[in-house]
Amino acid sequence: MPHLTLEYSANLAGEESIERLCTSLASCLDAQRENEQRIYPLGGIRVRALRCEQYCVADGRADAAFLHANLKIAAGRSDAAKKTTGDALFEVIKQHFAAEFEKHGLALSLEINEFSETGTWKHNNLHARLKV
Amino acid sequence: MPHLTLEYSANLAGEESIERLCTSLASCLDAQRENEQRIYPLGGIRVRALRCEQYCVADGRADAAFLHANLKIAAGRSDAAKKTTGDALFEVIKQHFAAEFEKHGLALSLEINEFSETGTWKHNNLHARLKV
Amino acid sequence: MPHLTLEYSANLAGEESIERLCTSLASCLDAQRENEQRIYPLGGIRVRALRCEQYCVADGRADAAFLHANLKIAAGRSDAAKKTTGDALFEVIKQHFAAEFEKHGLALSLEINEFSETGTWKHNNLHARLKV
Repeated sequence: MPHLTLEYSANLAGEESIERLCTSLASCLDAQRENEQRIYPLGGIRVRALRCEQYCVADGRADAAFLHANLKIAAGRSDAAKKTTGDALFEVIKQHFAAEFEKHGLALSLEINEFSETGTWKHNNLHARLKV
Repeated sequence: MPHLTLEYSANLAGEESIERLCTSLASCLDAQRENEQRIYPLGGIRVRALRCEQYCVADGRADAAFLHANLKIAAGRSDAAKKTTGDALFEVIKQHFAAEFEKHGLALSLEINEFSETGTWKHNNLHARLKV
Repeated sequence: MPHLTLEYSANLAGEESIERLCTSLASCLDAQRENEQRIYPLGGIRVRALRCEQYCVADGRADAAFLHANLKIAAGRSDAAKKTTGDALFEVIKQHFAAEFEKHGLALSLEINEFSETGTWKHNNLHARLKV
């Protein structure tokens, strides 16, 4: 945790652009602080994108694209931390696609969800490896 | 919003068939009415499909396929509107794969979820562009 | 139901390895019992994987990989059944990637969610076909 999954229509951008966006969003999560403490452990950050080759946006016009981001985090963060995180991630996304937004149809969106407390399992060597 | 994501096994259908299905499902969402008002704004409709090249359905028999549809909408629609929408979308899906259902193993399913009220962000020029 | 979706970074494994994992996880779901009764109907099992070609894990180091599994089941199973299922599935995942876990950065995770009671639709000929 945190997990950030992007779904996007293939007409939005090439894979290299999305790869850069994944890196920017991971950096953004890494930078989040509350009371000078980091909100998300670096070793828990996982950003990934799913390219959708089949889609229909709005009335199906060829220039209409979308990207939807879903952030899942462990339960228990403050509402302020969640709002700050969402604002920061969404700003990165809007900046990344500012030129596209001027030129063609584009729907950007972000949601934040919490993992249920009862049902999660983890096995992660990144926390230890990052300390080395 | 609304967001409709399809996941399907690659043995179910070619990409062109799924593209047509996305278009049919977007039209179906566009057509939904309650008290003569449209339920979903046209500029908010985003249908997309994720093709799964790796899968195992039931006992792993080669002819067993699946498609699962997940509709996410903003909270606050009536139960009747949700039921009507689900019935209409699922009818489109069943019709689209009626021939396949007769010929081989096939599991079709649909769920409806609501976005949490607290955590969504949006930036969408399609509402304005559709008015032009 | 049950639905198990895997998301994984493309640097983790080849498609053939993931296909074997899907089969192992389907067998694992098939084998789950509570009070000598099967927990999941065989005809409802759908395991699939989504390969993410764009991703950023932790600090973006090239050897950091992830796999996240999301199990969705109908509401109403006992907490014990859910825990047993999660433990069993996660053991299969850990075993499958034991060699990778020793060699490079790897974050494995699993969550269990329930479908909402109100909004699901199904059309499935596999239950009948498996009886033949």
